[in-house]
Amino acid sequence: MDIYCLLFEDYETLDLMGPVEFLYRIPEARLHYVSFSGGMVKSRQGFRLETRPLSELEPCSLLLVPGGQGTRQLVGNKPFLTALAAWSAQAQTCLAVCTGSALLAAAGCLNALRATSNKKAFEWVKSVSPEVDWQPVARWVKDGKFYTSSGVSAGMDMTLGFIADAYGTALAEETALHTEYVWQRNPEVDLFAAHYGY
Amino acid sequence: MDIYCLLFEDYETLDLMGPVEFLYRIPEARLHYVSFSGGMVKSRQGFRLETRPLSELEPCSLLLVPGGQGTRQLVGNKPFLTALAAWSAQAQTCLAVCTGSALLAAAGCLNALRATSNKKAFEWVKSVSPEVDWQPVARWVKDGKFYTSSGVSAGMDMTLGFIADAYGTALAEETALHTEYVWQRNPEVDLFAAHYGY
Repeated sequence: MDIYCLLFEDYETLDLMGPVEFLYRIPEARLHYVSFSGGMVKSRQGFRLETRPLSELEPCSLLLVPGGQGTRQLVGNKPFLTALAAWSAQAQTCLAVCTGSALLAAAGCLNALRATSNKKAFEWVKSVSPEVDWQPVARWVKDGKFYTSSGVSAGMDMTLGFIADAYGTALAEETALHTEYVWQRNPEVDLFAAHYGY
Repeated sequence: MDIYCLLFEDYETLDLMGPVEFLYRIPEARLHYVSFSGGMVKSRQGFRLETRPLSELEPCSLLLVPGGQGTRQLVGNKPFLTALAAWSAQAQTCLAVCTGSALLAAAGCLNALRATSNKKAFEWVKSVSPEVDWQPVARWVKDGKFYTSSGVSAGMDMTLGFIADAYGTALAEETALHTEYVWQRNPEVDLFAAHYGY
């Protein structure tokens, strides 16, 4: 499986690195670090990573979209959103972490679908698109080929959920065991929503 | 506080990125990505990151040592271990994640101290140094200025534990809240040790 990690300036480090830690353990997974224009892309925490420009996805591939401060500008970037709509249409599966779901929403990919996002930024995310059936109480949500998670760390639970769905629970459990990760496997349990009044 | 993230070839991505996600939220924290020789360093998962060579640490600084496959070679690298012993002596606090503790042990930093490490690799880690009081059942261990954690994800719980010790529980809780991280705050609870017969 080809896995495209879509980077942009000011993405949140753990939104990307948490899922990557698990995804690279899928047998025969090939990770690609890509961006709209290619070149060096810097995370919020200062990591500079070389990316190549994404044109077209291989068949049966996965698109991983992190969130972070950089999404605030990108939801108004038409050329980027047009490209994102095309990439997500080509992907077999899309995983969006935290405010990454705001990008998919702004690109129209989540219209009429259930989705979630970061709880601290939830009102902003909702304002990006009223066409989405936003779920305020969820660790992550799967609707069709789109997986969307709550903030930052929730992307790790969601990624293991995807691995369980696509490759079986045994691989998800083995991955959690080898990384000594305490997997919250119930997507409906959200320990953070209540703090924000949801 | 100056935070030195010590990179080496084939370090484990999440060993570094998990703690970094939390550490950069400490007010006035300055993150430095360093290595023995400087230059580009590649993680096990293929991230290439530019580092500068580490000579001397600023006063009152923190040294973060990830683990990963690269530690297997480094425990036999005398020049690296000599430098690591000097750096850890200069640091106010040392955090070692996963098999990062094997590096500190090989450098003699943990002699007569309590420490832990990755449970899957525990027998190898123990073999690196019999001078350490290895703890097979622990999410993380603090002894003096040295914090050592179990495998990969345990480094995140340990880092929040360090933040709580050094800056107060409120900052650790706020950090967990903003990253929607379910913090396992009891260092003595180890949900993975029993799987390996400890």
